[in-house]
Amino acid sequence: MSETSALPAAGAARVAALLTRYRERVLAALRETVDGAGVGYAGYMRYHFGWQDAAGNPIAEAAGKMLRPALCLLCCEAVGGDAARALPAAVALELVHNFTLIHDDIEDSSDTRHGRTTLWRVAGIPQAINTGDGMFVLAHRTLLRLADAGVAADRVLDAVRALDDACVGLCDGQHADIGFEGTAHVTLEQYEAMVAGKTAALLGASAAVGAIAGGAEARAVDAFGACGRRLGMAFQVQDDVLGIWGDAGTTGKPVADDIRSRKKSFPVVYALGSLPTAERERLRTVYEQPSLGEDDVALVLRLLEAAGARDASAQAAKRWAAAALDAVREVEMHPDRRADIEALAAFFVDRSA
Amino acid sequence: MSETSALPAAGAARVAALLTRYRERVLAALRETVDGAGVGYAGYMRYHFGWQDAAGNPIAEAAGKMLRPALCLLCCEAVGGDAARALPAAVALELVHNFTLIHDDIEDSSDTRHGRTTLWRVAGIPQAINTGDGMFVLAHRTLLRLADAGVAADRVLDAVRALDDACVGLCDGQHADIGFEGTAHVTLEQYEAMVAGKTAALLGASAAVGAIAGGAEARAVDAFGACGRRLGMAFQVQDDVLGIWGDAGTTGKPVADDIRSRKKSFPVVYALGSLPTAERERLRTVYEQPSLGEDDVALVLRLLEAAGARDASAQAAKRWAAAALDAVREVEMHPDRRADIEALAAFFVDRSA
Repeated sequence: MSETSALPAAGAARVAALLTRYRERVLAALRETVDGAGVGYAGYMRYHFGWQDAAGNPIAEAAGKMLRPALCLLCCEAVGGDAARALPAAVALELVHNFTLIHDDIEDSSDTRHGRTTLWRVAGIPQAINTGDGMFVLAHRTLLRLADAGVAADRVLDAVRALDDACVGLCDGQHADIGFEGTAHVTLEQYEAMVAGKTAALLGASAAVGAIAGGAEARAVDAFGACGRRLGMAFQVQDDVLGIWGDAGTTGKPVADDIRSRKKSFPVVYALGSLPTAERERLRTVYEQPSLGEDDVALVLRLLEAAGARDASAQAAKRWAAAALDAVREVEMHPDRRADIEALAAFFVDRSA
Repeated sequence: MSETSALPAAGAARVAALLTRYRERVLAALRETVDGAGVGYAGYMRYHFGWQDAAGNPIAEAAGKMLRPALCLLCCEAVGGDAARALPAAVALELVHNFTLIHDDIEDSSDTRHGRTTLWRVAGIPQAINTGDGMFVLAHRTLLRLADAGVAADRVLDAVRALDDACVGLCDGQHADIGFEGTAHVTLEQYEAMVAGKTAALLGASAAVGAIAGGAEARAVDAFGACGRRLGMAFQVQDDVLGIWGDAGTTGKPVADDIRSRKKSFPVVYALGSLPTAERERLRTVYEQPSLGEDDVALVLRLLEAAGARDASAQAAKRWAAAALDAVREVEMHPDRRADIEALAAFFVDRSA
């Protein structure tokens, strides 16, 4: 697992370069899609993306990483395709991801995202639900434009199927995640099944759809799909680590924010499964309260430390990242693109924001 | 317009027969799709469809008319296709329609639908939003099964495109409809643009997708699409009539319910556009209040009567129904299927529930 154990400076530079390489193209196509949709809810979409303020005035763009589009275009190039062919898919994936954010913010009653007021707080719940729906279907319609980019009809259908399957998984994972709030004990298996839907499915589809657009054989498409899903697992576990021990200045969220919101994230689920009975019961009891005070938060942090939950999480993320690279080890690709995928896997695990 | 001016008993029997002809097949396929999806939110979907109660016990099925699936299968047969080929599309259309109902009920804060507690009141807003999302993507995935039913890849893509375009229109219409609440004056043009999205787009897609699955040429597909959209306009205007003057026992809603909820429906929009200034201002002023008392409702009903709004609505619905039949007048089809479409158009206008 040497390729994922630490991210050397060269790796960080490679990830920055690859994200930059795709970002401008995707953003331009995304803006064209949103502005060209000819729909009344376009302004709400622009607000959500951080392109305009609540009054409709253009603002300096928020710097989203656009990981899903980047993974999609990278996998297209990895199988020897021209990234331009996968561009409609990259836009579709970013639209799907953002539709889930709009609905998640309503479902979680979140007031802010990346330091900006959430859409539902600005537009009200009815328009925010509808804007999410509208963004979702716009994503679907945009994916069909793969046909205009030169992808054959049966391959476009494969791509649509991959995205649809991912979105079914996404809603299933979200259903489980909402259900976790009312569940005292969540097992690692339940956690992994939830994340497989909520986070991993769409990253899996990002990689698979990129490979499909790039002209890959079915076996390679499956390999990239597995790679993307495992990257998604790694990504979420590291996200959970940052949600507890991340630096507030870098993540944009207060330290231990996920504890305060009683999230059943990987470290907590791990601790619930590995602490001795007495400590486990303390953790469970604290977490069952409707809200946590600062003493409770400190207690939870001590119990997580006692369980070795931070190390266990870091190791789990690394295992998933290594497994992701294993999935495509037998697939032929240009060494530069393999190095990109390796750097991306390492970044997913080592990132601090 | 003799075919739409009144529904003879033979027409009513024909509509009942055609709805029955398709209903059992669609329902069986719909249940198979929901139960076979393998998702945790299937129980919420079953609750919404009226197949189980809030505790999960099976209940006697609610008798949905399934108009969109019926229109889809009818148009498939009208162009000489086997209805079995369009069955996945029929299921997809019913899923899309019901996804919009689930989200509409949250957006309108509706407590009941067809006499049953709405999903969000049973499951909470987060799970209800997510179940709607999940039903939407299940619809999409089901549509792809047209390929398994023997429809060629490029035709499946045409069907997906037709459904996606309709859903973009649907969200756009919903955006306008929510916006109407805060708008004092809505013109007939604005009303028609809203209904063209909110109601007509999906009925248009129902007809078009049926024709696509049935193997129709592009020109016939367009004709059926136009027919379905115009049927949708007729359907909505008649829905608006029933929302004000419908019999409570038949519609399941109190008389004048749409007035009480200050809906900018066709009769009100018509009256706002045609009453003399003094009466128009009275109507506008009453409607601008945050809630309406029984005296207000009675006043609105008198003003609508003074404007001749009920007759004007009935005439508008009939014009749309006649225009729907005009759209397919040049399309070759079996006389029995044309008679079915004519009976359906008449039913849309003359129905009392």
